[in-house]
Amino acid sequence: MSEHLPFDEERLDRLQSVLKQRGLIIPAFEIHGGSKGLYDFGPVGGRLRSKIQSRWLHHWLSQGDIVEIACPTVTPYSVLEASGHVDEFTDFMVDCLSCEESSRADSLIEDNIENADALNDEDLGKAFEQFNPPCPDCGQSTWSKIRPQNLMFNTNIGVGKSGKPGFLRPETAQGMFTLFPKLIRHFRDKLPFGAVQIGKGYRNEISPRQGMIRLREFNMAELEYFIDPSIEYEYDFSKWDGYNFSLISETGGEQNISISTALQQGLIRHPTVAYFMARTYDFLISIGIDSAYLRFRQHHISEMAHYAQDCWDVELLGSYGWVECVGIAHRGCYDLEAHEKHTGRQMKARREYNEPVMKEIDGWVPNASTVGPTFRQHTKIVSDYIQTLPLEIQFPHEFKTADGEILLILEEHVNRDKRVEKVSGEWFTPHVVEPAFGIDRIIWHVLDHNYHEVEKSGELYTYFRFKNTVSPVDFAVLPLFEKDGMDIFAKEIFSNISHRFGMFAIYDGGGSIGKRYARADEIGIPYCLTIDHQSLEDGTFTLRYRDDARQERITKDQLIHILQEFNQNIEPIL
Amino acid sequence: MSEHLPFDEERLDRLQSVLKQRGLIIPAFEIHGGSKGLYDFGPVGGRLRSKIQSRWLHHWLSQGDIVEIACPTVTPYSVLEASGHVDEFTDFMVDCLSCEESSRADSLIEDNIENADALNDEDLGKAFEQFNPPCPDCGQSTWSKIRPQNLMFNTNIGVGKSGKPGFLRPETAQGMFTLFPKLIRHFRDKLPFGAVQIGKGYRNEISPRQGMIRLREFNMAELEYFIDPSIEYEYDFSKWDGYNFSLISETGGEQNISISTALQQGLIRHPTVAYFMARTYDFLISIGIDSAYLRFRQHHISEMAHYAQDCWDVELLGSYGWVECVGIAHRGCYDLEAHEKHTGRQMKARREYNEPVMKEIDGWVPNASTVGPTFRQHTKIVSDYIQTLPLEIQFPHEFKTADGEILLILEEHVNRDKRVEKVSGEWFTPHVVEPAFGIDRIIWHVLDHNYHEVEKSGELYTYFRFKNTVSPVDFAVLPLFEKDGMDIFAKEIFSNISHRFGMFAIYDGGGSIGKRYARADEIGIPYCLTIDHQSLEDGTFTLRYRDDARQERITKDQLIHILQEFNQNIEPIL
Repeated sequence: MSEHLPFDEERLDRLQSVLKQRGLIIPAFEIHGGSKGLYDFGPVGGRLRSKIQSRWLHHWLSQGDIVEIACPTVTPYSVLEASGHVDEFTDFMVDCLSCEESSRADSLIEDNIENADALNDEDLGKAFEQFNPPCPDCGQSTWSKIRPQNLMFNTNIGVGKSGKPGFLRPETAQGMFTLFPKLIRHFRDKLPFGAVQIGKGYRNEISPRQGMIRLREFNMAELEYFIDPSIEYEYDFSKWDGYNFSLISETGGEQNISISTALQQGLIRHPTVAYFMARTYDFLISIGIDSAYLRFRQHHISEMAHYAQDCWDVELLGSYGWVECVGIAHRGCYDLEAHEKHTGRQMKARREYNEPVMKEIDGWVPNASTVGPTFRQHTKIVSDYIQTLPLEIQFPHEFKTADGEILLILEEHVNRDKRVEKVSGEWFTPHVVEPAFGIDRIIWHVLDHNYHEVEKSGELYTYFRFKNTVSPVDFAVLPLFEKDGMDIFAKEIFSNISHRFGMFAIYDGGGSIGKRYARADEIGIPYCLTIDHQSLEDGTFTLRYRDDARQERITKDQLIHILQEFNQNIEPIL
Repeated sequence: MSEHLPFDEERLDRLQSVLKQRGLIIPAFEIHGGSKGLYDFGPVGGRLRSKIQSRWLHHWLSQGDIVEIACPTVTPYSVLEASGHVDEFTDFMVDCLSCEESSRADSLIEDNIENADALNDEDLGKAFEQFNPPCPDCGQSTWSKIRPQNLMFNTNIGVGKSGKPGFLRPETAQGMFTLFPKLIRHFRDKLPFGAVQIGKGYRNEISPRQGMIRLREFNMAELEYFIDPSIEYEYDFSKWDGYNFSLISETGGEQNISISTALQQGLIRHPTVAYFMARTYDFLISIGIDSAYLRFRQHHISEMAHYAQDCWDVELLGSYGWVECVGIAHRGCYDLEAHEKHTGRQMKARREYNEPVMKEIDGWVPNASTVGPTFRQHTKIVSDYIQTLPLEIQFPHEFKTADGEILLILEEHVNRDKRVEKVSGEWFTPHVVEPAFGIDRIIWHVLDHNYHEVEKSGELYTYFRFKNTVSPVDFAVLPLFEKDGMDIFAKEIFSNISHRFGMFAIYDGGGSIGKRYARADEIGIPYCLTIDHQSLEDGTFTLRYRDDARQERITKDQLIHILQEFNQNIEPIL
């Protein structure tokens, strides 16, 4: 498929202007002077976005053990404190003392130092002394002290004295963790299962640049797939055996290799991670990403969070170079444990033994006769919490509820529970594998990979070669002239297409047919239907294909067949 | 369809508990103690929401002259200042001096005074003196002064000194107005046309109550349909002629009447409003709203904004009484003019005359030789602005750019343009008709209207009778036993259904068949497929219908036919 697209700056400029003019992607609030890091999807781009999101959703739901959820974007402080975002979601910021513009410190020295984004504030300060970078806005080099800046948008939930601090979520993942008790109940306690969410994420970038790559408000889509760490999961990789993926692994370096070989060789450290890498590849190809511009890059141990067991980025090559667009991370039990610790709510699954074993129990259980009367509405949560306490705990012990109330657990509220018991299973915290998708970055690369420029009669002819799965407009219906009943015939066909669920057409009656074909190509419409005089006589009309300008005459019945096939994505089994 | 559902409080309690337990609607961040006015759509509710949103989108896009857009939720101050939301999006708030809880002042006296939400702060103060309402939280009656409170969530866009004030949008509509120049270009300057957007809206309610009815973050869907005010649009209402809508109009009171009669009698004041009322009715019925619990209520002249020409609410009856779920408003030219005034960007359409007319021109035009050198990058905007100035304007005149910069326009920058000209058309501001949908409130009523309770063997048997268009799960696939190959057969069928675009199934292998049917009914799955010993012999299996528990044996071919029909919504024309 690849034609070695020239990802140079001139092409980028032309592409951006095309996107704006044809109503695909437009800087948001443009008439009001714009707002950095925010974009609109216009009359053509809107449907590209929703089709890519629908395809993403279908790709995962079709797996059969994954469900869709939707949570608020406004999130209380305590939730993001539990997740670690309040403490750790920071960049280092520096102010220009001449023009007052704020910048990300690392981005100013990224040409001088490799991996500048891995430096701490002290090392960044040293680098600033050494390289004394100019301000990108005014060119001066007088800098404030470098300081950490949390990147979450903050707000207040509620008003006046009832108001509580909150944030706009930096990711969609937390919803899958906070809803874990409902998810495991839905799947009737049986692992593995997953949940997905598509929605907005927010990141108050210090100085957003690079168009759709670094946004303050973005479309995200995440999957959390919960697994039992004691099980060696087996996946059928035969489907991908004929294909060599481009991998950059920590130990193997850059190579083309099949996914199952990479797993056997230990380059990919976990079969579930390998499986989701392959499935992610399938998704990206299905929406029109060019496989020649796709590679997987493994995080170095030093790049990964301490709890992560393996992490791969999907990087796509386009006008901004190689850009991280998907992250597939094995996060261990970190997230569920963090929420369990902060809420006292059990976030575990149960594993039944093949046969019961005798086990020595020694721990704390609630004293029902005192806990209920003392803790009233908190009885359940305190009772659960008591059972998680280690043997060596000292009473009285303070327990903080999710509301911030401090409850004092005394010795009289607990009983020591020491005995030998026949047990049939055990509770454990599931591990999670998380494929996280930056939808806007993916949309950008779908546009970038499918934008084509050719010369036609000495002029630049530009068009998008979208796959049918994502084309913003599916059909253009064109009466040769708007008279003699050609318009009526065309409107009938137009209406028939438009009323089919998931199908979208435009009716274009004006200008020469050549001009109208060009307008259709400009926004990547795969099929044009032209109704002419012959149509009135024999009911046939012209089907014109975007990619090769081929034309053929078809009947209504043939069109209906094409319509039925168009939006399907069946892998036939029956 | 209606069975006179008993919308009483006991049923409401049972319904809410069912929604929570079955993973439909769950208070958000529940494990962290919850956050008022925020809800999660769980493992079953998530797909209900996305199917209803897809159906909404299709309903309008299928009209053929409407496009989809998507804009950020984070919105700069200037945009919402232009729209009027900074000044006017307020409620009156009062603090309890005993417990510090904030409340909406009008809601505390709504049992004492009708239309309390129409009172201003002074009248509310008098009402408080007269009725001295108790605090809903602590019961005391010691109140702070009543004060207006803007209901927008505020935040900062950017950080440090580069940060600018912004809000979370209170509605999705502004995106369609700020993108108007791109929309009219897409439609090649031809009215009427529309644009829709589905997304989050935010309203920092003072004291949210009533479950899904009054939320702080909600799912909205709005259509802005732009029309030429000089044209008498004609619509074909014959499709609805057989049906009497329940209307409460300002002059006619409550009556059942056909939509075209209501328009002819002047009860509905504009044909485009009548058309979108009828189309809205169709949408609500298509997703399973019970027509017996739907009525249209016209706003009184005193209720409407000064610029509005007509406004109708769709009210749905359910457990919270009659609730406003859709508003269909004729907003005149207010919004486009407001943005034009604040930005200086022309937000107009052009109307060509049937034949040219001679017209006296008298106004200001920019003096090209002075405007360019003086205003540099602002030249275009200042030039456009000068042409909008009235003849009697005084120079120097201050012009404020979208960035807040003040530019001084002097006499030397303008020329008086007085002449007689042959003109072929004129510019005008389109009018807009806006159907605005509260998606969460609609989802609530879909749940409320489709929740059924029957007695079965002396026990309460509850289920949802969702329409296929919105059922969260389309099929349940049930092997009678997970052995002898029944599980393999079942998984084949399961996989075939799941891989079809837009289709979702669950595989349920555990427990008695009766129990599994009950579990499927509980979440409203319309069809169960049971694979038994006979299936292994002749390839047939049982199709069981949710609504009447009817069962029949079908073949794979019959299933494929059902699958092909299932998700279609074709109004056949060809």
